[in-house]
Amino acid sequence: MKIDGKAWRTIWLEPDGRSIGVIDQIQLPHRFTTRTLRSCDEAAEAIRTMVVRGAPLIGVTGAYGLMLALQVDPSDAALAAAFEQLNATRPTAVNLRWALERVRDRVAPLPPEQRAEAAKAEAAAIADEDVAMCEAIGDHGLAIFQQLVAARPAERQQEPLRVLTHCNAGWLATVDWGTALAPIYKAHRAGMNIHVWADETRPRNQGASLTAYELGREGVPHTVIVDNAGGHLMQHGQVDAVIVGTDRTTRRGDVCNKIGTYLKALAAHDNNVPFYVALPASTIDWSIDDGVAEIPIEARDAREVTHIQGRVAGELAVVQLTPDGSEGFNPAFDVTPARLVTALITERGVAPASEDGLRNLYA
Amino acid sequence: MKIDGKAWRTIWLEPDGRSIGVIDQIQLPHRFTTRTLRSCDEAAEAIRTMVVRGAPLIGVTGAYGLMLALQVDPSDAALAAAFEQLNATRPTAVNLRWALERVRDRVAPLPPEQRAEAAKAEAAAIADEDVAMCEAIGDHGLAIFQQLVAARPAERQQEPLRVLTHCNAGWLATVDWGTALAPIYKAHRAGMNIHVWADETRPRNQGASLTAYELGREGVPHTVIVDNAGGHLMQHGQVDAVIVGTDRTTRRGDVCNKIGTYLKALAAHDNNVPFYVALPASTIDWSIDDGVAEIPIEARDAREVTHIQGRVAGELAVVQLTPDGSEGFNPAFDVTPARLVTALITERGVAPASEDGLRNLYA
Repeated sequence: MKIDGKAWRTIWLEPDGRSIGVIDQIQLPHRFTTRTLRSCDEAAEAIRTMVVRGAPLIGVTGAYGLMLALQVDPSDAALAAAFEQLNATRPTAVNLRWALERVRDRVAPLPPEQRAEAAKAEAAAIADEDVAMCEAIGDHGLAIFQQLVAARPAERQQEPLRVLTHCNAGWLATVDWGTALAPIYKAHRAGMNIHVWADETRPRNQGASLTAYELGREGVPHTVIVDNAGGHLMQHGQVDAVIVGTDRTTRRGDVCNKIGTYLKALAAHDNNVPFYVALPASTIDWSIDDGVAEIPIEARDAREVTHIQGRVAGELAVVQLTPDGSEGFNPAFDVTPARLVTALITERGVAPASEDGLRNLYA
Repeated sequence: MKIDGKAWRTIWLEPDGRSIGVIDQIQLPHRFTTRTLRSCDEAAEAIRTMVVRGAPLIGVTGAYGLMLALQVDPSDAALAAAFEQLNATRPTAVNLRWALERVRDRVAPLPPEQRAEAAKAEAAAIADEDVAMCEAIGDHGLAIFQQLVAARPAERQQEPLRVLTHCNAGWLATVDWGTALAPIYKAHRAGMNIHVWADETRPRNQGASLTAYELGREGVPHTVIVDNAGGHLMQHGQVDAVIVGTDRTTRRGDVCNKIGTYLKALAAHDNNVPFYVALPASTIDWSIDDGVAEIPIEARDAREVTHIQGRVAGELAVVQLTPDGSEGFNPAFDVTPARLVTALITERGVAPASEDGLRNLYA
């Protein structure tokens, strides 16, 4: 997608073939900078500190991280160690493990001297496939948006379609296009009158920073709201649809996404607002049924609750919000039960959030 | 309640009898300072800018604001002008109008030269009654907490009662004790093992700042969480009860409180967690039935969404969270329908959230 008119991906192989470029998402929206990852350690650190984030992008970064490790040491032991190091960075998303397993399974049978090149090719393939999957999600989601508009009375056809999203499941969370935001970009490019309510998404504010930044650069009309506001907007008919991403989807369609998603799903259900989840196949965890009971939820540093980063006088600054002596707790994800999900939008099409629905698409 | 061992109220008549002292809540939790209000203009400004906030405290401040106006000019015209000026500062809470009407109706029949003294006495009476009402709410709420503990199996009797609250309905929102926090203070002083989850409460963070500050000064165990986290905690059995305040309660028991309250009520309902609302009679608006349809919701400055205040290197600082060019929208309250409220805790006792329930208490 575009920044100041130039098309970018979030991650790329540098011309030297031995390092990876990424957009430094910690600096956004205040500063656009890129960073070079030259080792598996640096890739792991970039994931852990959320220089890169978003389940699909984490997966691709992990895949390239294995390449970086194998370029230094292509032994079985080094491969296993790099796999464990990268896999431990973020416990909730399933794409990371999926991508790491895919690269490992591709390279493990090869002679060590061929592994680094094979990992490079596999990581590049995962990245390219992610772009294609996200664009397909965009097309399927666009069809849903068009149906929502078509279902309106004639006098309301020209009003904006108002879509609420939580966190950032845009192109910055993937390689390009995004998951939840892909249909929004498709709709905007198709000339649809669309407006996005962007949930701030405390504690790390990926909505107020990354989603607002993305949408602004692409010229999509949007308004930032605090996470508390969405229910009120839905009560007052100001939201036509909710669309979010997911870090892990169980086989019955429970959706594990950024903390607070569940609250928006409850409000959508209470106000008859359709609640869509956009996902590539790589986020489906076929081994898990009950998301609330079975998905490990990452607890991140409480400092993300007690402090916040912003910009003052052109510089980044971190301010303390809480009184000295008050502790915080910081679960990073929650699980939205399938019963609250209107439909899953995947690269293969739209399915009910159920085991039958998913199995029909991915038989 | 106590700050560093000394007992305070949030508002008081200064010894000169012609000015009002208040705790400056904008500076909390980072700095404890007081401010003197010497005119009706200053009282109105203090309400508008949230130097004082919380429905009961706003009411008392408004009452003293009329006194300050009448000390300068006790005419009918000045009384009417001051009433309108103060009443326009915050449109959602009903205590403000209630307190202003009470003072006006008390002084209007008097000769002008007696009005200022009568207003002073009436404002002081409102303040004293508020303290008594809040303490009574505390006693009734404590009884509920004791029932919740008593209903546990024997082996869980000693575990903390975990209570989630949203925004600040503590003593800083009233004159003393608080509404939603009064039962918590009563329980803590009675030796109950109690722990509070304090919702941050964006955009103005009254939970992370004021509730955490209050609880910390009184030594009540508490943890600050982002507004997004409560649903997840309830899904995982980490919340035994929710208790919040209200800025306006309709005759059927709909509750208008700080934005985001509705989302917590939905989550409590979905997880069979009891959801209590603590209120003095002055927040009941008998003229309104359907809160969602009939209560005007204040839209505050979008800068409260796009920027946030905190402390850095010992100084207060405001940082920008959003990219330049992204707008915000800032509705300050939402309405929780009575169907989601387990019970109302008032100074007269506990009632179901229904017209019959309220009428039985306030026949």
